[in-house]
Amino acid sequence: MAEFLTETKRRPRGAPRIPGVLETLQRPRPAGEGGSGPADGHEAVAILDRARVSVDPELRAAVESLPASMRRVARYHFGWEQADGTPAAGSAGKAIRPALVLAAAAALGGPRARSAAVRAAAAVELVHNFTLLHDDVMDRDTSRRHRPTAWTVFGDADAILAGDALQALALRLLAEDPHPASGAAAARLADCVVELCAGQHADTAMEKRGPTEVTLDEVLAMAEAKTGALLGCACALGALYAGAGEDDVAALDAFGRQAGLAFQLIDDVIGIWGGPSRTGKPAGADLAARKKSLPVVAALTSGTPAAAELAELYALPYEEEGLEHTMLAVERAGGRDWAQDQAADRMGRAVHQLARAVPDPESADGLLALAEFVTRRST
Amino acid sequence: MAEFLTETKRRPRGAPRIPGVLETLQRPRPAGEGGSGPADGHEAVAILDRARVSVDPELRAAVESLPASMRRVARYHFGWEQADGTPAAGSAGKAIRPALVLAAAAALGGPRARSAAVRAAAAVELVHNFTLLHDDVMDRDTSRRHRPTAWTVFGDADAILAGDALQALALRLLAEDPHPASGAAAARLADCVVELCAGQHADTAMEKRGPTEVTLDEVLAMAEAKTGALLGCACALGALYAGAGEDDVAALDAFGRQAGLAFQLIDDVIGIWGGPSRTGKPAGADLAARKKSLPVVAALTSGTPAAAELAELYALPYEEEGLEHTMLAVERAGGRDWAQDQAADRMGRAVHQLARAVPDPESADGLLALAEFVTRRST
Repeated sequence: MAEFLTETKRRPRGAPRIPGVLETLQRPRPAGEGGSGPADGHEAVAILDRARVSVDPELRAAVESLPASMRRVARYHFGWEQADGTPAAGSAGKAIRPALVLAAAAALGGPRARSAAVRAAAAVELVHNFTLLHDDVMDRDTSRRHRPTAWTVFGDADAILAGDALQALALRLLAEDPHPASGAAAARLADCVVELCAGQHADTAMEKRGPTEVTLDEVLAMAEAKTGALLGCACALGALYAGAGEDDVAALDAFGRQAGLAFQLIDDVIGIWGGPSRTGKPAGADLAARKKSLPVVAALTSGTPAAAELAELYALPYEEEGLEHTMLAVERAGGRDWAQDQAADRMGRAVHQLARAVPDPESADGLLALAEFVTRRST
Repeated sequence: MAEFLTETKRRPRGAPRIPGVLETLQRPRPAGEGGSGPADGHEAVAILDRARVSVDPELRAAVESLPASMRRVARYHFGWEQADGTPAAGSAGKAIRPALVLAAAAALGGPRARSAAVRAAAAVELVHNFTLLHDDVMDRDTSRRHRPTAWTVFGDADAILAGDALQALALRLLAEDPHPASGAAAARLADCVVELCAGQHADTAMEKRGPTEVTLDEVLAMAEAKTGALLGCACALGALYAGAGEDDVAALDAFGRQAGLAFQLIDDVIGIWGGPSRTGKPAGADLAARKKSLPVVAALTSGTPAAAELAELYALPYEEEGLEHTMLAVERAGGRDWAQDQAADRMGRAVHQLARAVPDPESADGLLALAEFVTRRST
């Protein structure tokens, strides 16, 4: 593991960095203030960079194997090409999911397991991007990674087909992988796709309902299916490729799921109160879109006077002068505190699950750094 | 094999029924006249019935494993349920693809291989139905198997998600199958999905072009990708499950592909001049929709005076009084003869490929009966 945990030696053994995360989560962060101190984030950034270097060739080879019609959509979506086919220097996202696959494999099986899991990591990234292509069509989202979404450039049909093809490529990568875990990994990834679809269905169905017709359990279940499932699957695949037993695979899945939920909770907090300048999301964005995000639903279902006020505000069309008022209502109804407490609680559960499967803190360090990174969103 | 070839003994050995098919293909059939004589079709119908009995439990179990939101869309699409969730007696289609998987397995490996290939047969049917769900969304087709398409009932998002989930279920079935061929089968099926997507892309892209801007090679390649690929893959999967070597798997794939092209050619002939009453397609349907079907493109690219006339007619919006004139122009430009000759040629190639892998006519009989059935469309 030492090979990719460049900062491990700065901390005494047995002192995981996670209490820092919990502290950060519980301390209200004023909008615009970045959460990245000098000591955190660097390790995760290095892990992500290494994951990209390992996975990119596999990912590009898979996309290059596509017929031209879908290749150009995929290349555009990944940020490798402009719409006209000229090269682009854009980024294909932060590669958090493949990094989790590799970090989980390394945590349970060392560098050799990490190397063996590169195809599985690429498969997870292909599935992630297939769902992004399709979700953008369904949600009519026009922007992704600061660029027009694929369907706005190539039309619905080609975006749907490119997504279909990326799913097929993902499962082909695993089917062609001679590793003894590849069959179990493929079954698990296919199951995860079904869960992602259920999460996306719940999301679109919920957006059609009134703001007071959604329960907190529903929105938590949706976030777990839509965000937690693939992060959990990524970690579970890494464990499978390390030859881990059923219990450890399940623990790694639970670690990823809980970290994924923590991530979503923090993302939703940022969607209301703003976050580090580099996230690109202005404060109030989710409120303006009348999104039933986790803090909003927690506020709406709090039974407080502020909840009733918020419900009234959410029933009206958005007006800029009402934004601060709405923000305050979510806060007074306890939406922000609840989300931050929940995020801390989920991270606690994640750490607990990880400790079950990987008791050695040094081995667990890469996964913890990634979990911390996604919940801080410092870059 | 005798177990499912109930009519084999009526014919002397070594006298495959395929010359009958070729004859039928070459004899112009007046609109409305059914192609089913008393002697043909029965065997194929029995094979299809047996395939449905074998595959249905696997297919239903897979669909039942879906979360409720996608299960209802899938149940409706398969014709098992009405839109309101009440049971329907509808049919899930003719099950030609699963029947080809099972017949190919039986032809190369006997009844034991046939039994072992049931999951693979269900996987192929799941992939077929995933593409139907998505194609209907992209093509805005409102009717499928005499019922409103899924997207018209449940909306685009749920139809796309149900399709995504069916693809995942298909590949999960193979990933969970302990059969030694399941990995190779999954890789082949995933490859086929990519080809199906390319075929659908070519189809939608071609429909946007002018009638004289499409070449015959393009439309043949599109038909091979969109129709031939999955029929070929079905046969190849059956061969893989029978433990066949690379050459035999390739020959079975080629058999299915060529039979699939013959099927598409005959289907396109029926789409212009009508066919057996039970096909449900009225004469002229494809001309009314200005479809660039195979006989039309053959006619348009024939360099005859009738070709120029047809191009002019196709540039105008459809009017009922012009239909007979258009039909006649396709015929005079040689579109019908070309399609029937091509279908016969493709069936000849299919039979040749099959004979390479399965020299014993009795063993080949089930596959031949199915190929004959799909190109006659007698039911």
